Amino acid sequence: MAGDVPSFGDPTRYLPELAEFVAIPSVSRESDPGAMRAAARWLAGQLSFADGRLIPTDGNPVVTGEWHGAPGAPTVLVYGHYDVQPTGELAEWRTPPFELTIEDGRAYGRGATDDKGPILVVLKTAQAYLRQFGALPLNVRFLFEGEEEIGSPNLPAFLRRHAGQFAADLVISADGAQWRASEPSVSVASKGLIALDIRVTGASRDLHSGRYGGTVQNPVHTLARLLAGLHTSDGRVAVPGFYQGVAELSAPQRAELAAISFDDAAYAAELGVPALFGEPGYSTLERLWLRPTLEVNGIEGGGRYTVIPHVATAHVTGRLVPGQRPAAVLEAIRAHLSGAAAPGVRVEVTAEPGGAAAYTIDPGHPAITAARTALAAVYPGQQVILARIGGTLPAAALFEEVLGAKTLFFSFSTADEMLHAPNEYIRVRRLGEGMRAWAHLWRLLGGQLA
Amino acid sequence: MAGDVPSFGDPTRYLPELAEFVAIPSVSRESDPGAMRAAARWLAGQLSFADGRLIPTDGNPVVTGEWHGAPGAPTVLVYGHYDVQPTGELAEWRTPPFELTIEDGRAYGRGATDDKGPILVVLKTAQAYLRQFGALPLNVRFLFEGEEEIGSPNLPAFLRRHAGQFAADLVISADGAQWRASEPSVSVASKGLIALDIRVTGASRDLHSGRYGGTVQNPVHTLARLLAGLHTSDGRVAVPGFYQGVAELSAPQRAELAAISFDDAAYAAELGVPALFGEPGYSTLERLWLRPTLEVNGIEGGGRYTVIPHVATAHVTGRLVPGQRPAAVLEAIRAHLSGAAAPGVRVEVTAEPGGAAAYTIDPGHPAITAARTALAAVYPGQQVILARIGGTLPAAALFEEVLGAKTLFFSFSTADEMLHAPNEYIRVRRLGEGMRAWAHLWRLLGGQLA
Repeated sequence: MAGDVPSFGDPTRYLPELAEFVAIPSVSRESDPGAMRAAARWLAGQLSFADGRLIPTDGNPVVTGEWHGAPGAPTVLVYGHYDVQPTGELAEWRTPPFELTIEDGRAYGRGATDDKGPILVVLKTAQAYLRQFGALPLNVRFLFEGEEEIGSPNLPAFLRRHAGQFAADLVISADGAQWRASEPSVSVASKGLIALDIRVTGASRDLHSGRYGGTVQNPVHTLARLLAGLHTSDGRVAVPGFYQGVAELSAPQRAELAAISFDDAAYAAELGVPALFGEPGYSTLERLWLRPTLEVNGIEGGGRYTVIPHVATAHVTGRLVPGQRPAAVLEAIRAHLSGAAAPGVRVEVTAEPGGAAAYTIDPGHPAITAARTALAAVYPGQQVILARIGGTLPAAALFEEVLGAKTLFFSFSTADEMLHAPNEYIRVRRLGEGMRAWAHLWRLLGGQLA
Repeated sequence: MAGDVPSFGDPTRYLPELAEFVAIPSVSRESDPGAMRAAARWLAGQLSFADGRLIPTDGNPVVTGEWHGAPGAPTVLVYGHYDVQPTGELAEWRTPPFELTIEDGRAYGRGATDDKGPILVVLKTAQAYLRQFGALPLNVRFLFEGEEEIGSPNLPAFLRRHAGQFAADLVISADGAQWRASEPSVSVASKGLIALDIRVTGASRDLHSGRYGGTVQNPVHTLARLLAGLHTSDGRVAVPGFYQGVAELSAPQRAELAAISFDDAAYAAELGVPALFGEPGYSTLERLWLRPTLEVNGIEGGGRYTVIPHVATAHVTGRLVPGQRPAAVLEAIRAHLSGAAAPGVRVEVTAEPGGAAAYTIDPGHPAITAARTALAAVYPGQQVILARIGGTLPAAALFEEVLGAKTLFFSFSTADEMLHAPNEYIRVRRLGEGMRAWAHLWRLLGGQLA
């Protein structure tokens, strides 16, 4: 069987190229057009075997390409994103974020694991196939966007406009981390996402708390009351209607999750929390994978002086599960907040456009079967877990709607690799494992090992 | 009577000197030692008639001086501060904060009214007396500190060390604004102050809300719950023991305040709030002057991304009235916050040292009588109101303790002049009114008009 897929050698040989890619600060939230184009062009250069090129959008360009040399074989569309999160506080990084730094088998850098490393895995898989065998085992199209980290605002219109060009039997996403490093997993669901901002405004300016104290409502007090009202003290979401449409867990679902080893104490220790916490009546894994959540991501107002701040704001997001409609959940939250009495201040609740519903793929889908087989080939003797992604990949729902194709998440990022945080990294061994797994997957999907 | 006090001419003639003083960015919270010393030296230069000089402290120097040429007359100690608040957001200033800008009878600049303008009033009063009459009507010592805006951390030790040098029959404070521009007032009380910080910590880092959501407590949720628990929804402080020792308002107190014209609607319109708000059962003025308050001055945590923040913080201050002991109030708040259940996070409550009790001076005190007479001379036909300062002047309690002297607040700042905010200003006419009022006050206190 060894001859059926290319050989890749030591994964460290690919690090110089990953370093080049990471060195381009393609932070979509800061949208430096030069950096975004540089990252896109770097990627197009790697896709020379597939006529790699940029297609403009109303935002950052999409990088595309296609290899159609396997007549009769299926066509897959490979999805990923070349944009990265902002670095956040530079002081919290132990190494420069845009200088790939190798330490103890880990490659540190912004984007190393989300999503530049996983994209490199696919590029090298394709290049190895072509170099060693002269062909890929199936037809491949590529769609790498540059706005995933800001919610893909231009992807829907772009995809609808170019739907014919991206037609495929299956989408394979290089984005969407495997959930832990100790065993292989394939994801069968991702959560949806809604986002909203709350802004409480009082006076036209900050007021001296002595000279005005006792006469006006403090917007921070109102905001605190509104935010405290989003949850019960034991961790359940208190917004009426939030859980509408969410199916209660079935006995087989609970059994399936209970069969997966999960060490609450080790997990708490790794995160540094004194105890785990969440909606009562569910195990940690059930809450993480199968229950919707609502989190306040940020609050801001006033400062450290003796003022009554005149504005206080909060950013709130919810992660949805199947059965929840994003628009209905947003409306339920808005109604809950608007119904709370707030004399003396103005409360504005603004829903961010672009909410995403949860996504699922049938565990019996042929792509899932192929993925499990490919992983079993790379991780012999290990159980392949059917996992869920707590994060949101709105592209999957979009591909289903526009292309009529399901999406297989097949990333070799791991969820603990500081995604969106300082000191992001990817395990170097995962690069090699990923290339072998993608090679097996493509061969399986191409029918050559069927 | 006109000949008994110096003449001052048009107040605009003093603006160039105020501009010089304001131009020195003596922001004590940023503590640029060069700027602090420059402001202190400028002030000492103005006090050449009183052997003006700097005395070092463990922080910024005190500027002092004395004129003892009125044997047999009382000695007053004039207090003020040459430090100013930070500018805050420069974008919110319509004019450069350290360039005094005159517009419509107002002189804009950081420190113009808190406390550089009111200090200039005293300096010019003394200089005019000496130039025109060759003498002051009483003995005067000066104490201008450079750390009032950061809570005067070094003043207590300094004053104890130099108590003999500052002995006086009365302290007159150039700090402590009059409460409104429409009528003269003299203050007979100021509120006390306590401050504390709340810090809620969860994981060792911000967590991706999808990849970890549902498994850990969100520190912002806990903070919101703690802050919401500080007040009832109708605006009363909900901390058990907070009101301990606070006397219920007497019928004469209520009648006194009810006799003062106060237009709630105009006040709300000036502040830009949709409605006034505060502890039920009290009028706006009663809440402002006679009731203690507790305000969240600032909150911070996370940002606008989809994270579960790992830290959320709040700064809280209380304004106290007579009968409340700062240490006891702080302990009551700490107990209230610590008693709240907060599973999954750590809550730290840190009291700031240096809480101050409220301060009062008997409305029948001879200094109050002299102040009312002096104001009546400058504002003929207008009622002089006995007002309270909602702000805190910890120096007054300190002077009483160390020097055994009461403090008369006699500032010509007005409470609406954007103290501690962008676009701080002083009314130019107030400079002239202040000089004439100080001149009358000194003459009255010196016994020459008795």
